Amino acid sequence: MVKQVRAARTRRALLQAAAEVFAADGYAMASLPSISARAGVSAGALHFHFSSKALLATEVENAAAEVLRSAVERSRSSSATWLETLVDATSGLLVAMAADPVVCAGFRLGSDPSRKNGPGLPGWWRTWVHDLVVQARAAGELADDVSPEGATAVIVAATVGFGALGSREHDWLSPERAGQFWAFVLPRLAASPQQATGAVTGASGAE
Amino acid sequence: MVKQVRAARTRRALLQAAAEVFAADGYAMASLPSISARAGVSAGALHFHFSSKALLATEVENAAAEVLRSAVERSRSSSATWLETLVDATSGLLVAMAADPVVCAGFRLGSDPSRKNGPGLPGWWRTWVHDLVVQARAAGELADDVSPEGATAVIVAATVGFGALGSREHDWLSPERAGQFWAFVLPRLAASPQQATGAVTGASGAE
Repeated sequence: MVKQVRAARTRRALLQAAAEVFAADGYAMASLPSISARAGVSAGALHFHFSSKALLATEVENAAAEVLRSAVERSRSSSATWLETLVDATSGLLVAMAADPVVCAGFRLGSDPSRKNGPGLPGWWRTWVHDLVVQARAAGELADDVSPEGATAVIVAATVGFGALGSREHDWLSPERAGQFWAFVLPRLAASPQQATGAVTGASGAE
Repeated sequence: MVKQVRAARTRRALLQAAAEVFAADGYAMASLPSISARAGVSAGALHFHFSSKALLATEVENAAAEVLRSAVERSRSSSATWLETLVDATSGLLVAMAADPVVCAGFRLGSDPSRKNGPGLPGWWRTWVHDLVVQARAAGELADDVSPEGATAVIVAATVGFGALGSREHDWLSPERAGQFWAFVLPRLAASPQQATGAVTGASGAE
């Protein structure tokens, strides 16, 4: 039992160290020795838990997806409207990218040019955003002339862009930036000015 | 003289090959031998023109900036309004990122995690977009409640995001996507519906 607890702790430390190295240097430059050293474990222990760098990257992405999925669920249950959920989840993602290396690395790995994989986390994010936008339309919260596809594309592209720009200038991942984004986007998205205002004041992450 | 012409041609071929390799594999994975082989020149010829991979990347960024600067200038002289210039230049950038490896690589190098440099091309793009938005405000083309900083942030983040997403799914860099983006953003940005419509129908790149 003690052994299992220790193994789980080592695994978490390795994922955290891998995320920090991926977020700082990108996938190609990240080396397994630098990851095991940062986690304070031996190369053998790393290999026991993760057989390759590719697997480590996939597990960081999965862990980030799990954090995000829970955050979207929380936004959903604490929000009065779909627009408020969207504002809260997006602002939460930007704040998490700044504060949590796992989310930051997981998101950036999805558009890292040195890694040849599928759409990854940005792809899942796109599905979630689209789902929320479609729900908002069905609930009469969207302006009539807004296309769900267009709105999804703008929100997803801007989120990915904030993440990429944030790797050089941290300011792009601040709550102020998320607020600025929604101050611009919500009046266009919402069916009425009241709904736009309600979505911002209701959402906790966008002060 | 013939020698100088040949040297200039070799230099161009090397920049083009480097851009293709950077765009496909990212900075860290790009190797000088693969670049010289793709350009059809010897390793010695590459070293004669560019003493390092870092210098090659900087020169690709400079060449991309020059292409973009000319494109913005052309948009500016062919457009009737600042909003039309903005639509035309942004759509032109997305199309150029899909069609021209130099522009694509130059833009992506600016947020490549394996390269530790300044804000690069995305930083210059931000300055240009901000300048156009400020001119649009001064000319009375912007809606009163739009903040130039917020509008600039959304346009720049979305452009960078389209570029990053386009590395996995080419569709993100299509003219249709640019049209979708402006159909969403312009009604919010423009002082009047007429100005929003005029900016799209006037701009050549956003059909």
